[in-house]
Amino acid sequence: MAHKLLLLTRENDRYRQLLTTLCLPNLEIVDDLMVDDSDHYTGGNISDTDIWLAEPHLAASLLPHVPAPNWLQSTFAGVDALMHLSLPHDYLLTNIRGVFGPLMSEYVFGYLLSHYRHHNVYTQQQQQQRWLAGSYGTLQGAQLLILGTGSIAQHLAKTAHHFGMTVSGLNRKGGHVSEFDSIDTMDKLADYLPLADVIVSVLPSTPQTKHILNAANLTLLKADAMLFNIGRGSTIELEALQAELTLQPQRQAILDVFEQEPFPADHPLWHYDNVTITPHIAAPSFPEQVIQVFSHNYQLWQQSKPLQYVVDVNQGY
Amino acid sequence: MAHKLLLLTRENDRYRQLLTTLCLPNLEIVDDLMVDDSDHYTGGNISDTDIWLAEPHLAASLLPHVPAPNWLQSTFAGVDALMHLSLPHDYLLTNIRGVFGPLMSEYVFGYLLSHYRHHNVYTQQQQQQRWLAGSYGTLQGAQLLILGTGSIAQHLAKTAHHFGMTVSGLNRKGGHVSEFDSIDTMDKLADYLPLADVIVSVLPSTPQTKHILNAANLTLLKADAMLFNIGRGSTIELEALQAELTLQPQRQAILDVFEQEPFPADHPLWHYDNVTITPHIAAPSFPEQVIQVFSHNYQLWQQSKPLQYVVDVNQGY
Repeated sequence: MAHKLLLLTRENDRYRQLLTTLCLPNLEIVDDLMVDDSDHYTGGNISDTDIWLAEPHLAASLLPHVPAPNWLQSTFAGVDALMHLSLPHDYLLTNIRGVFGPLMSEYVFGYLLSHYRHHNVYTQQQQQQRWLAGSYGTLQGAQLLILGTGSIAQHLAKTAHHFGMTVSGLNRKGGHVSEFDSIDTMDKLADYLPLADVIVSVLPSTPQTKHILNAANLTLLKADAMLFNIGRGSTIELEALQAELTLQPQRQAILDVFEQEPFPADHPLWHYDNVTITPHIAAPSFPEQVIQVFSHNYQLWQQSKPLQYVVDVNQGY
Repeated sequence: MAHKLLLLTRENDRYRQLLTTLCLPNLEIVDDLMVDDSDHYTGGNISDTDIWLAEPHLAASLLPHVPAPNWLQSTFAGVDALMHLSLPHDYLLTNIRGVFGPLMSEYVFGYLLSHYRHHNVYTQQQQQQRWLAGSYGTLQGAQLLILGTGSIAQHLAKTAHHFGMTVSGLNRKGGHVSEFDSIDTMDKLADYLPLADVIVSVLPSTPQTKHILNAANLTLLKADAMLFNIGRGSTIELEALQAELTLQPQRQAILDVFEQEPFPADHPLWHYDNVTITPHIAAPSFPEQVIQVFSHNYQLWQQSKPLQYVVDVNQGY
């Protein structure tokens, strides 16, 4: 059976090139669609495209205006842009998983090691041509708490163990997850926050995770704790975090995701010495990896078999 | 049999405290020795101390003036300060091994990830309140070449594999070493340098390793190679490296050790944008770890058994 694929990404040229190399059978590609700032689209006859390979926020802009596809393959892990109640949900949604763990580990451990091993101190000393060994820090023996225990969290836990850290994880149900020293339920968050040297949230954006880190529990962090958010911005009540970081200058926050992206240029947090802000780059989707997931799923789709990485719309991930 | 131990470190108080906790039998501690800048010593009756727990350069200053101990436990891995021909060698010398791998990995991968994941770019953008995802880099698939294949090199190789790198190692004899994808002999250095994205030297200071990286082979590095020296400064011909780094600004050198330490304040390399200079802090000796090695060796010594980590004076490590 013939299929018509809509490409809806900021890297359409690269995707078309990769798809052409793969020679997927019976697949016609439409990639000349333009969506302007007012959500109007031009070009491309897309009314009969049955498969979309799309960035979630671009698909979310288009869905109110055209018939939904039968299957939408997201190019990202995070699909919260597609979860709004006002949008149609009568299609199969798959996302990308399993490839982000190594990239997330690079991000988290890059900034962790930079902080624990005092890169800033030695950069300053170099600028002053100053040779002076300072106090020593090591990740060995430090306590890591991960909010979320999925494939990304498991990879982070594995990296942390390699560096000699102890790792706890929190999820909805508790119970054993490989790579963790201990697992508990998210409602025990307040018990675990005071014990952690490093906290990493990889939580998705759902009603249950909204502002799960807030004024009531951020005060429980150790005075020199490091907090990473590489999941979704909505999990942190940013005003409360800002208040804590003002009071406790030894605490560090490394933030890659925000409720409002791009993060507003006039926000005071940009100027905090104990805050690192990056533009949602912890784990980029490489087209080469996305296309592997898509082409495997396309073969399953052609054979009417269940696809990989189907999103449960009720859970939102 | 009773033994008399001379403590000769810059952290004598900490060592005495740790030794007291351990209650090693028949061990009297002498720690009130002072060595001044002219290598004169005062205090402490050390002529009958049969065991020294000492930093190599401090022991080297003292050895010409007093009877050598029967056994000298170095608090460092690097013992080249004790290798001078003018010094006595009629004592058993042991050093510290096995504990530096994790610290060296923290150092190397901290700076590697900082560079590959563009920490500088995002720090600058944060200063400008600028939200802009840049080009992506990852350690996955990068080629690491390690000069040396001992316990530190093996730990680095393990960390590199966790991050998805491919790892080659060079040593004197070639032959299989666990954790490496390939091993070859050091005389093949010129074949391996052009293939490596990252080169790490953990080589000790010996006549064979002196200026092993020099004007003849540093030109072979990739244009964007990163070179780490965490072994000994004498392995790199620094003038040749400086010339290469001037010609090839995309090349990076991360240098923790130098032939002259402290590294002279007037050296031009301090000011190079593509050079990171740190004051010999890649893998500090923590007294807690040193004391574990010492106390195990002390028990063996009392039982007249062979000690751990004996240094071969002919090889120099």
